[in-house]
Amino acid sequence: MARHAGVSTTAVSKVLRNAYGVSPAMRDRVKAAIEELGYRPHAAARAMRGRTFTIGVLLPDLRNPFFPDILDGLNEQLAGTDYQAIMVQGGPGTEAEARAIDALVDRQVDGILMIAPELGRARLEEVAAQVPTVVLGQHERSAVYDAVHDDDELGAELVVRHLIGLGHRRIAHIGHRPGGRVRAAAALHVIRAATYERVMREHGLEDGIAVALTSYSEEGGYEGARALLARSPRPTAIFAGADLAALGALRALHEAGLAVPQDVSLAGYDNTRLAALSSISLTSVDQGGAAMGRTAGRLLLERIEGRVSSVRFSVTPTLVPRHSTAAPPRS
Amino acid sequence: MARHAGVSTTAVSKVLRNAYGVSPAMRDRVKAAIEELGYRPHAAARAMRGRTFTIGVLLPDLRNPFFPDILDGLNEQLAGTDYQAIMVQGGPGTEAEARAIDALVDRQVDGILMIAPELGRARLEEVAAQVPTVVLGQHERSAVYDAVHDDDELGAELVVRHLIGLGHRRIAHIGHRPGGRVRAAAALHVIRAATYERVMREHGLEDGIAVALTSYSEEGGYEGARALLARSPRPTAIFAGADLAALGALRALHEAGLAVPQDVSLAGYDNTRLAALSSISLTSVDQGGAAMGRTAGRLLLERIEGRVSSVRFSVTPTLVPRHSTAAPPRS
Repeated sequence: MARHAGVSTTAVSKVLRNAYGVSPAMRDRVKAAIEELGYRPHAAARAMRGRTFTIGVLLPDLRNPFFPDILDGLNEQLAGTDYQAIMVQGGPGTEAEARAIDALVDRQVDGILMIAPELGRARLEEVAAQVPTVVLGQHERSAVYDAVHDDDELGAELVVRHLIGLGHRRIAHIGHRPGGRVRAAAALHVIRAATYERVMREHGLEDGIAVALTSYSEEGGYEGARALLARSPRPTAIFAGADLAALGALRALHEAGLAVPQDVSLAGYDNTRLAALSSISLTSVDQGGAAMGRTAGRLLLERIEGRVSSVRFSVTPTLVPRHSTAAPPRS
Repeated sequence: MARHAGVSTTAVSKVLRNAYGVSPAMRDRVKAAIEELGYRPHAAARAMRGRTFTIGVLLPDLRNPFFPDILDGLNEQLAGTDYQAIMVQGGPGTEAEARAIDALVDRQVDGILMIAPELGRARLEEVAAQVPTVVLGQHERSAVYDAVHDDDELGAELVVRHLIGLGHRRIAHIGHRPGGRVRAAAALHVIRAATYERVMREHGLEDGIAVALTSYSEEGGYEGARALLARSPRPTAIFAGADLAALGALRALHEAGLAVPQDVSLAGYDNTRLAALSSISLTSVDQGGAAMGRTAGRLLLERIEGRVSSVRFSVTPTLVPRHSTAAPPRS
C-alpha cells in the first residue's frame, strides 16, 4: 500500500497512528490510498509493524460506577487515534485476574491499562516486560511500568477531618479486606484505612475508632455498616472507602430506621455520579477519574511509541461535601 | 475445499475472514465452493486457525447498571470452561460500534455476544457468518445468529397498566431516540414506546399521551423529564424506558421541587440494583438480566460446538412495584 500511495511505510504508519510530523498533503495521499484499496488500519498496521491497535483494560468489576469515569477519559484520549480499547473483568481473586491479563496478552494488545489490580508488583512487571503497561490505583514504584494514582492519604484525611470538624467523635470506617498480593503500603484501601486511624489518633479519638473490613462493593458496604451499627455506643458517622460501599451502608442505615444525616452521617470516596444523585447526595472525595483515564491513555501511547523511562502520576483529590454529612445528633 | 474451489487455502481463509486483498472473482469462487460443499464459514475458519477460548462481548455503554447483571450471568455460564470474556464498548454511534465489533473479530474471538447493538440485521449477519454470534435485546429473526430478548411489549404493558390502575390519566414516557440501523419493529425501545401509546389509547387516554425521545441514559432521563414537566397540564406519572433514565428523571423532579410519588409517580425498566436502593425504591420491570446472560452464554457455547440452527429465547418480564409509584395527587 505504501508503494501505491507513493510514500514511505514509515509515513503510512505515522498516518495510521495519527502521529505528529505528517503533512496534511501526505495524510490525504495515504488516506486516499487506504480508501481506494479498502485497507483497514489495524490489518495494514499489523502487516507493517505487528501492531494490533488495541489497548487492553483490566477492570476489577463492572458495577463500580467510578470505573466508567476512568474509561471515559481513556476513550477520550484514544479518540482520533486508531486504537480501540478491549476490556476484561479481573476479579474476584488473583487467579481470575491473572487469567484475564493473560487473555489480553494472548490477544496481542499493544498496551495494557490495569485498574486497581490485586496482583503484586513482581507479576505485573512480568507482564510489563512483554507489553507496555500502566497501573492505575496501586502506589507501587516500578522501573518497568507507569503508575497513575490518587493521593489516597490526603483524600482520607479530608473526609475524617471534615467529620471531626462537624463534631463527630465516633467515626467508623468501612474498608476493603486485602485479598490480593499488593504490598500493604501500596494498596489504596490500606492507605485509606491507615490514614483514617492516624487522623483519629491525632485528634485523641482512639476510642472512637471502629473498622469493618469487608469490600468496596454494595454488599460489602451493607455488611460493614450492619456490623458497625450493632456496636454500642453506635458510631455517629461512617466513612466508607468507596461510594459503592456507601450505597450499601445507606441500605443498612435505612433498614435500621436511621436517618442520614440526622442520626448518622455518611461519606464515600470517588465522587461517582451516584453520589451526586439528589436522592443520595453523598459527601465524597473527587479524585478526577476522567483525568486519570486520559493520563493513563497518554502514558500508554507514549510507551507504545518507545518511551522506556518510568513515570508516576499522582492526583490531588478534593472533598465534595453534600447533604449526607452534618453535625452529630445531640445526646 | 480449497482444491475444490481451485484456489489456495490462504485465499479461502482470507475470504472466510472477510480479509482484504481478495479479488471479487476469487471471493465468488470460494463462496460458491462453500455453498456447494455446505461448508460453514466459522467452523472452517476455526479449523484452520484454532480456538482462542475468548468470547467477545459488545456493550453499548459501561454506565447502565443493567449490563453487569447480564455479564454476571455470562461469566457464571463460562465459569468452569476455558473461555474468557473480553469486552468492547460499542457506542456512541453505529460507526464506533462497527469498529468495536471489528476489533473483536480481528482478535479472533470464538464467539460474540452483542448486547443491544445499534447495527441492523444485515451487518450483524455478516459478522455472524464469520463468528458464532448471539444478539441480546433486538427482536430480530435471523437464520444465522441466535437472539435473546425480553418480551418488551408485555413489560411496557405491565408498567402502564400499573399506573392506570393507580388512577393516573396523564402518564408520560421517556424513550430512546432510534439512532441506529435496527428495524423499528425489532428495536426494544421502539416496542416499549409503541406499547405505551397503544395501552394509553386502549384506555381512552389519548389526550394523556406525552413522549420525550431522548436516550436511555442519566442525561437523557433528565432532559426528557424536564421537557415533560414543562407541559401544561403536567403529567402525574412518568414511565422511563430504562432505570438509568429514571434516575435522571428523578434529578429533574427534585430540581423542580416535586416529590416522588406524592406529586409525580416514576417507574423505570430493568429492575437494576439501583432501583432496589432504599433511597430510590423505584418501581421497575424485571427481565432477569443474569438469566439472559447465562442463556446467551449457553447458546454461544452450543454454536461454537457446532450447532447451526437458529434459536430465539424470549424472557417473560415481571413488574416490581416499589415506593416511587402511588395514586396521583387529588386535583
